Amino acid sequence: MPKEMAKRELVMNKIKTIFARFGYDSIETPIICPAETILGKYGEEGDKLTYSFDDNGGRRIALPYDLTVPFARLVAANWQDLPMPFKRYQIQRVWRAEKPQKGRLREFYQCDIDIIGSKSLLCEAELAKVIMTVFKELGFKQFKIKVNSRRLLNDVLTKFGVGEKAVEVIRIIDKLKKIEEAAVIDMLEELGLNSPKELIETLVQERLGDFDLSEINQFFEYCEKLGVDQKYLEFDPCLARGLDYYTGISFEVYSDEAPFGALCAGGRYDDLCGLFCKEDFSGVGVAFGFERLMLAMEEMGQFKEMQSNSKVLVTIFDKDSIDNSLKIYSSLLEAGINSELYFQPEKLAKQFKYADKKGVPFVIVCGPEEIARGEVALKLMKSGKQKNIPTNQLISYLSSYYEN
Amino acid sequence: MPKEMAKRELVMNKIKTIFARFGYDSIETPIICPAETILGKYGEEGDKLTYSFDDNGGRRIALPYDLTVPFARLVAANWQDLPMPFKRYQIQRVWRAEKPQKGRLREFYQCDIDIIGSKSLLCEAELAKVIMTVFKELGFKQFKIKVNSRRLLNDVLTKFGVGEKAVEVIRIIDKLKKIEEAAVIDMLEELGLNSPKELIETLVQERLGDFDLSEINQFFEYCEKLGVDQKYLEFDPCLARGLDYYTGISFEVYSDEAPFGALCAGGRYDDLCGLFCKEDFSGVGVAFGFERLMLAMEEMGQFKEMQSNSKVLVTIFDKDSIDNSLKIYSSLLEAGINSELYFQPEKLAKQFKYADKKGVPFVIVCGPEEIARGEVALKLMKSGKQKNIPTNQLISYLSSYYEN
Repeated sequence: MPKEMAKRELVMNKIKTIFARFGYDSIETPIICPAETILGKYGEEGDKLTYSFDDNGGRRIALPYDLTVPFARLVAANWQDLPMPFKRYQIQRVWRAEKPQKGRLREFYQCDIDIIGSKSLLCEAELAKVIMTVFKELGFKQFKIKVNSRRLLNDVLTKFGVGEKAVEVIRIIDKLKKIEEAAVIDMLEELGLNSPKELIETLVQERLGDFDLSEINQFFEYCEKLGVDQKYLEFDPCLARGLDYYTGISFEVYSDEAPFGALCAGGRYDDLCGLFCKEDFSGVGVAFGFERLMLAMEEMGQFKEMQSNSKVLVTIFDKDSIDNSLKIYSSLLEAGINSELYFQPEKLAKQFKYADKKGVPFVIVCGPEEIARGEVALKLMKSGKQKNIPTNQLISYLSSYYEN
Repeated sequence: MPKEMAKRELVMNKIKTIFARFGYDSIETPIICPAETILGKYGEEGDKLTYSFDDNGGRRIALPYDLTVPFARLVAANWQDLPMPFKRYQIQRVWRAEKPQKGRLREFYQCDIDIIGSKSLLCEAELAKVIMTVFKELGFKQFKIKVNSRRLLNDVLTKFGVGEKAVEVIRIIDKLKKIEEAAVIDMLEELGLNSPKELIETLVQERLGDFDLSEINQFFEYCEKLGVDQKYLEFDPCLARGLDYYTGISFEVYSDEAPFGALCAGGRYDDLCGLFCKEDFSGVGVAFGFERLMLAMEEMGQFKEMQSNSKVLVTIFDKDSIDNSLKIYSSLLEAGINSELYFQPEKLAKQFKYADKKGVPFVIVCGPEEIARGEVALKLMKSGKQKNIPTNQLISYLSSYYEN
């Protein structure tokens, strides 16, 4: 619906402007993909949630489950033509055949940015700055970029002899967000870990003196140099989601203003395109949860001052005044003032109601009396005030109104 | 790919800005639709060209074949909340399972605008003005908005006793664009028409004195009042495509600069939502062929001066100068100057090559000598010229460069 779209486009344009400010380029990928390129990437669970079907030519087709796989395909096919490092953003719909819930739909927008082709930690720091800028400029005040390092977590797990069970252990550690420490420890014990209590305490209490913290320290130092306000950053050794995919620094962003899960998540990965080509592209990227951002901003009241596209409605008083209204409308358009014409000479009340419903702030009335005096009557819808303005001063009046 | 996307976004943003200037609102509709709402609208041919499939829940799903049907569904479900008349635009992908050819793809963007809920001919005139504005502002010089009236064509067909065969006759008349008059006459004769020669001559030679031309004349008069330059308008009584759907004025736009068919087409229709609700919404709308517009503009050389998102690349001279480069990059970002950082201290030649490949116009170099002098070396990539600028004057230099 138009009012919803206006909000969505406002947010999208803000985000795009920020990405462009940091030199990220936009790409788009096809929605119809050969199923074999999508399926199998996310295991059985992922396959079940992917929309796939046969097309008329008998080819198996799938709709993208996320933007990472289509991006990997594009890079694999075109890397020789891309500048490296390659910084891209991509805002497109993806599909998941799951039960819809709050902030989670079957068809929704994802909003990804990635830097590939550089292993420098400056990439991670830049992403932290991009994240901070996006959240600040969207009006968030209370948000935290939680940061962890897969390498560090690996070291800790190794010390506690976790070995082959790392993926399962990481999945359990991730539950610390939601359930009690004691329950997590029990689950790890059940899995057969020797000292689950010590492992969890090491992470929770950040007893990390024995471990190599150079990566995480260097990241925080670069962030500071790049002007990432430290109050938005938080080192969290328990951050574990997606850590079977990520290989270095990882991020999750939470806000008290949006108490329904991470608003943004990502990290450093190796080998983006391994499934599609032999080249080895390491990268770092995050995905913004666009639908959740919209929900959060709605709850924060960020859309209260939304305005309609058109600033002026030119009414038609009666049949004889059509020509005059057309002339006024035409002159507004030539002056680049967003405006519209009511298409019929109907009761003014009905024309005003249209302006009101659409949220058009100014209405111009021009009947035989106004025409005779070379004037228009200009009504400000918000205050209900009306003033007469010489027709030849209308443009400059409205232009100055919108410049100030 | 980024360079292609930059062009597409430039054109989309121009078009959106024009639509907004005329007070049209943006809407978007889902891509996953119940098949029964899509199939059957365009006959067997249409069904064959529609992507449809079963989802995991056994529901038959179809991807939109055009934007009209999803729009009709949205209006049918929400008309009580919409301002009426309702002016919307919609730019989205649609899918057709057909053999791709030049300017015709399986997955492509459509770009529709419609006014519904008003029968005033002022709507048609406004659309003509929107069309003119779009083509002019996209850089087209040679284009014609061809206009016909279904009512008039009906009158002519009735006079020649066409009766029930109207749809077939209209389809044959449409071939006048491509094949010779004599061949068209033969085809009409084969169909059993009594005086096909006279019918075609009446249309081609515009022998329309006996017919009611009030609709078409009123349209041209409104266009003139609205400032639609008459040189772009052309009355064409033979214009027939889609006239079994349209009920009043219809449009097709051609340009000598794009000799591959209509770039835009549409017209007045009755009863948009008949399939979905009882309300009767008459409307008028046109669809711009986005992919064809892009092709035409490419051939016209409209994209020669495309610039990259980032205006400045901050290089890193060596490990010791990282902090200084970060500071400069950070200050550019704070000043809102689109810029980026090279993430590693590598050979300058490689960093310059990156800027060149991406089309970044300025490169900043700042090694130990420049740092010592409190300067940066600024290279203009286009001319190859380089100048030293005090670091504290860099922002104002670059800002003034982009303001002028």
